[in-house]
Amino acid sequence: MSAANAGRRPTLAVVGATGAVGTVMLDLLSTREDVWGEIRLIASPRSAGRRLTVRGEQVEVIALSEEAFDGVDVAMFDVPDEVSAAWVPVAAARGAVCVDNSGAFRMDPEVPLVVPEVNPDDARRRPKGVIANPNCTTLSLIVAIGALHRSFGLEELVVASYQAASGAGQAGIDTLYGQLEKVGGTRTLGQRAGDVRGAVGDFGPFPAPLALNVVPWAGSLKDAGWSSEELKIRNESRKILGLPGLRVNATCVRVPVVTTHSVAVHARFSRPVGRDAAWETLRNAPGVVLSDDPEHGEYPTPADVVGTDPTWVGRVRESLDDPNGVEFFVCGDNLRKGAALNTAQIAELLAAEFSD
Amino acid sequence: MSAANAGRRPTLAVVGATGAVGTVMLDLLSTREDVWGEIRLIASPRSAGRRLTVRGEQVEVIALSEEAFDGVDVAMFDVPDEVSAAWVPVAAARGAVCVDNSGAFRMDPEVPLVVPEVNPDDARRRPKGVIANPNCTTLSLIVAIGALHRSFGLEELVVASYQAASGAGQAGIDTLYGQLEKVGGTRTLGQRAGDVRGAVGDFGPFPAPLALNVVPWAGSLKDAGWSSEELKIRNESRKILGLPGLRVNATCVRVPVVTTHSVAVHARFSRPVGRDAAWETLRNAPGVVLSDDPEHGEYPTPADVVGTDPTWVGRVRESLDDPNGVEFFVCGDNLRKGAALNTAQIAELLAAEFSD
Repeated sequence: MSAANAGRRPTLAVVGATGAVGTVMLDLLSTREDVWGEIRLIASPRSAGRRLTVRGEQVEVIALSEEAFDGVDVAMFDVPDEVSAAWVPVAAARGAVCVDNSGAFRMDPEVPLVVPEVNPDDARRRPKGVIANPNCTTLSLIVAIGALHRSFGLEELVVASYQAASGAGQAGIDTLYGQLEKVGGTRTLGQRAGDVRGAVGDFGPFPAPLALNVVPWAGSLKDAGWSSEELKIRNESRKILGLPGLRVNATCVRVPVVTTHSVAVHARFSRPVGRDAAWETLRNAPGVVLSDDPEHGEYPTPADVVGTDPTWVGRVRESLDDPNGVEFFVCGDNLRKGAALNTAQIAELLAAEFSD
Repeated sequence: MSAANAGRRPTLAVVGATGAVGTVMLDLLSTREDVWGEIRLIASPRSAGRRLTVRGEQVEVIALSEEAFDGVDVAMFDVPDEVSAAWVPVAAARGAVCVDNSGAFRMDPEVPLVVPEVNPDDARRRPKGVIANPNCTTLSLIVAIGALHRSFGLEELVVASYQAASGAGQAGIDTLYGQLEKVGGTRTLGQRAGDVRGAVGDFGPFPAPLALNVVPWAGSLKDAGWSSEELKIRNESRKILGLPGLRVNATCVRVPVVTTHSVAVHARFSRPVGRDAAWETLRNAPGVVLSDDPEHGEYPTPADVVGTDPTWVGRVRESLDDPNGVEFFVCGDNLRKGAALNTAQIAELLAAEFSD
């Protein structure tokens, strides 16, 4: 920011304030250190006029429009790709630095893709006035991977995800709850082919039943059988880590969990790691909690991680037959670090420029 | 078998006839080609006297004892490890060839570990009169992997499992249903840390809640943080495929599915494979169904695979940056091919020796 801004508390706009991620964002803005002047809540015209609580005060939601960005210093977007594609340039042209949580700009070479624990300096180079927030699945593992990469030099990732319903937004949450209501009292379902398919009702945003099931699909179909979600993990990890040649193969699977993505990770480094050194690195990594004592039943699970900020890592093992390899299991709240929290952290990096 | 046996229909004993796997076994014995003379049902003394239906007839369950094996040609054991360890040698000493589905004998070098589609000839060398049936998780992927190995030469596996509750027996099934009854009508659970833990009641055989959760643990703790289930996949795959140096790293995770294990597989071979050749091999592999058309929502899920015999494979992709690598997702009913069916197939190989 220019020197003229120094010392001013910046104005923040939250676009998509009424959605699943927006709701978590308002909670975060009310509980994190308050660095903002005005906080403006923006949503689609049908949500305009609703009053939401942020920082203990009622704020009226205003409709998305060009004028809504007048005087805004930082604008966070938690809206679908096509809404971001249309409106982020509008906000940027009005002078707001935009932090976008959609997929619209993540792979744009002129838009940095930022995880504050991993590549905070990238946030300073933003020729379009736009910073992108990574996909929630990438975010569930990248903080832990970033810490290990700094110590040991990452060369390859093979990952399999266990993705929560809320990764598909409020419709995903509603669908899972609706299906569980239908199957919850029936002690015979899930034992014959198709019986769950017939019992759960609406599939909502998912291509198959999610209750009593797992579904090896998330996103849209890309080349050669890959899903968009699988390619995002690869492309975004490469960009965030600054490793354009990193080998990444992912399989993305949806599971009947409301919120918190988990990932089973096989990571190969350029030098030997070992369990003790991996533990040491993860224990000291900002944003990571090491929960790894299987003898006492300690490993992260979504039910215990949901609603918390950090990336939780457990089940750390040296790969068998390969001292350069490490296996682990990671859980992260896909609405918090996976979306709202990382966006808030990026916005706070920007806010700090005002007090420089 | 000796020539004296030729043409006789052998007597079969089913030990553990009242358990989760035993129940599926009786269903299989009633629907598969009938190669057996007498079928004797054996269980613990507390189940003795119960009458179960097999081949359309009521058969009284008798208590496990030395005499129960008199005249038995083939004995299948679907009981816990310690029961098999004690009673398989007794049955073998009485002249029965034993097919054991516990972990007690799988790694014994004098006991073959057999998957009829992969290594049927190993069933003929059984110095102890015992053949072991692999673990259900190994069985969920080994038929597909075996077919690809025959064509392309397997060198490395990295797998992550999505294991069903019934892998922990009837108690696992009952626990999952009980937990789903408790959470099924509540549209707020799974959004705050610990709320599911407080709501589900009894964890049963699992170390954490299974409803609305995934749990990165199955089996018991072994060296260096590995679980017994993860090491079984490695050791059993090596033995079945005859590849003692095969590199295998597995992460085993329990999911809230009643029956049917799924596995995300990254497999590396000694020569280039490609998606078309992998499809061709899998399409022609006995015991495998290829279900791979994501454009039309075709990929295997537990809800559609449960209750069927084959190994279902989908999401086949050439690994990115590695023409020798293949990714895929596989589902198999852990009580059928993963337990009862493979045991029945092995027993049928033995029965065929009587008609040689």
